[in-house]
Amino acid sequence: MTGAEPITSLQNSHVKRLVRLRQRREREAEGVILIEGARELSRAVQGGVRPRTLYSCPALYSPEAEALWPTLPGERVELSRPAFEKVSGRENPDGLLGVAQQPVARLPDPAPDAVVVVLHGLEKPGNVGAILRTADAAGAAGVLVLGRGADPYGPNVIRSSQGSVFTLPVAVLEETAALDWLAAHGFTTVACTPDAPRSYWDADLGGRVALLLGTEHAGLPQTWRQTGTAVSIPMHPGRAADSLNVATAAALVLFECARQRRPAAGGHA
Amino acid sequence: MTGAEPITSLQNSHVKRLVRLRQRREREAEGVILIEGARELSRAVQGGVRPRTLYSCPALYSPEAEALWPTLPGERVELSRPAFEKVSGRENPDGLLGVAQQPVARLPDPAPDAVVVVLHGLEKPGNVGAILRTADAAGAAGVLVLGRGADPYGPNVIRSSQGSVFTLPVAVLEETAALDWLAAHGFTTVACTPDAPRSYWDADLGGRVALLLGTEHAGLPQTWRQTGTAVSIPMHPGRAADSLNVATAAALVLFECARQRRPAAGGHA
Repeated sequence: MTGAEPITSLQNSHVKRLVRLRQRREREAEGVILIEGARELSRAVQGGVRPRTLYSCPALYSPEAEALWPTLPGERVELSRPAFEKVSGRENPDGLLGVAQQPVARLPDPAPDAVVVVLHGLEKPGNVGAILRTADAAGAAGVLVLGRGADPYGPNVIRSSQGSVFTLPVAVLEETAALDWLAAHGFTTVACTPDAPRSYWDADLGGRVALLLGTEHAGLPQTWRQTGTAVSIPMHPGRAADSLNVATAAALVLFECARQRRPAAGGHA
Repeated sequence: MTGAEPITSLQNSHVKRLVRLRQRREREAEGVILIEGARELSRAVQGGVRPRTLYSCPALYSPEAEALWPTLPGERVELSRPAFEKVSGRENPDGLLGVAQQPVARLPDPAPDAVVVVLHGLEKPGNVGAILRTADAAGAAGVLVLGRGADPYGPNVIRSSQGSVFTLPVAVLEETAALDWLAAHGFTTVACTPDAPRSYWDADLGGRVALLLGTEHAGLPQTWRQTGTAVSIPMHPGRAADSLNVATAAALVLFECARQRRPAAGGHA
């Protein structure tokens, strides 16, 4: 459709559909996801996702978007600036938005020292996305998402993960299926919970390790806390702050796993 | 004013002023801050801040807000639900909002092993607030905010810090004043920057340490990178994620400082 007139009407069927697809139930009904932004689209393609339709607005292009646009697959539809701003979920859109089929969940193929992150009921997309980004950077093998929390392919998770949701294996599972898979592959489960007597610095996090994280309010269900081991992050005594954000806690334990896996590491102190 | 009729008009002068005060320049012109939410107000009072005026909406009270309300200082003004929702900055307000004089900046009185965080030009309130919360939990002595970034007393910083901005010493300084203060107190500066060859695991972070953090895009200015030492957080090779959020990086280095300060620690690996 390159060369066609850009869509300007906010009543156009493309525009109305894109607005609808900002709702999770609409995306699930169609089995599609929205991928906005050059970095996110680039990571999606890197992760094997092929956008079906690519919406663009040259007036809004960032340099990255302008360079990426010709290399992306998918049918092309150009939108006017007001139309693009109507469908965008961002304050400063870069002029690229793709619609793709929802990726098929992937379980990792775990190495002998694989670290996987298991998220239980996390609802804030920003936290889920931040954990995906950090897990990727720390070398985790994948992330298992349990139950009905944030949609891991929702626009805000994609954005805050900076696209790592596409390049890291991510699976949405029932709790029992996750426990079975972890047990079958010989994972030690490590529940990250504020009341564990053992600090994460003192735990042996070698081998196949599954880091279990729950919501800040509800924590982890009893079943998960009774298997494997549990670690906490020591809070400095006497401070007003007596807890950490769940994505911060995840980062600390993930990088402690990385530290204990360094080739030159002599173990932990 | 307890017992008076609640304010219902959205044109009332209290309501109009509170809406104006959501702008930084309006707060600065009046020398006041907005403190919304029971936890944040409670931490503010704990940190020595006395709200001048306390706006309440019993119909919106959380259990915490209802319990806290009678204990708070300040003149009381009751708002109707629509009026409170108009002035609130939250999706789910808990019915408490205070206006207080802007706190006076405090420099920490540093212990021999004090850790301070120095933020250079950070613009996202969520990142600044997250760093304040984590710094408090990790036992940092205080935070120095340089230059014109996010307002450390803006509503979104207060919220994401969960009120730690009131209980932790926080000072807003010019760059040279900060450098002078750090030098006069014998701090070693540790620039956290992605291209430092030394990992944060391998740096000696003992004694008085100032952790310098810049924006994800611009990084730290050359002057700051040339003093003291520099550390990076090792990114797992071959991953799409090649950087961390600045608040995540801060958390990792802050808790490495805590780990190296443990009474039982035998040093780092």
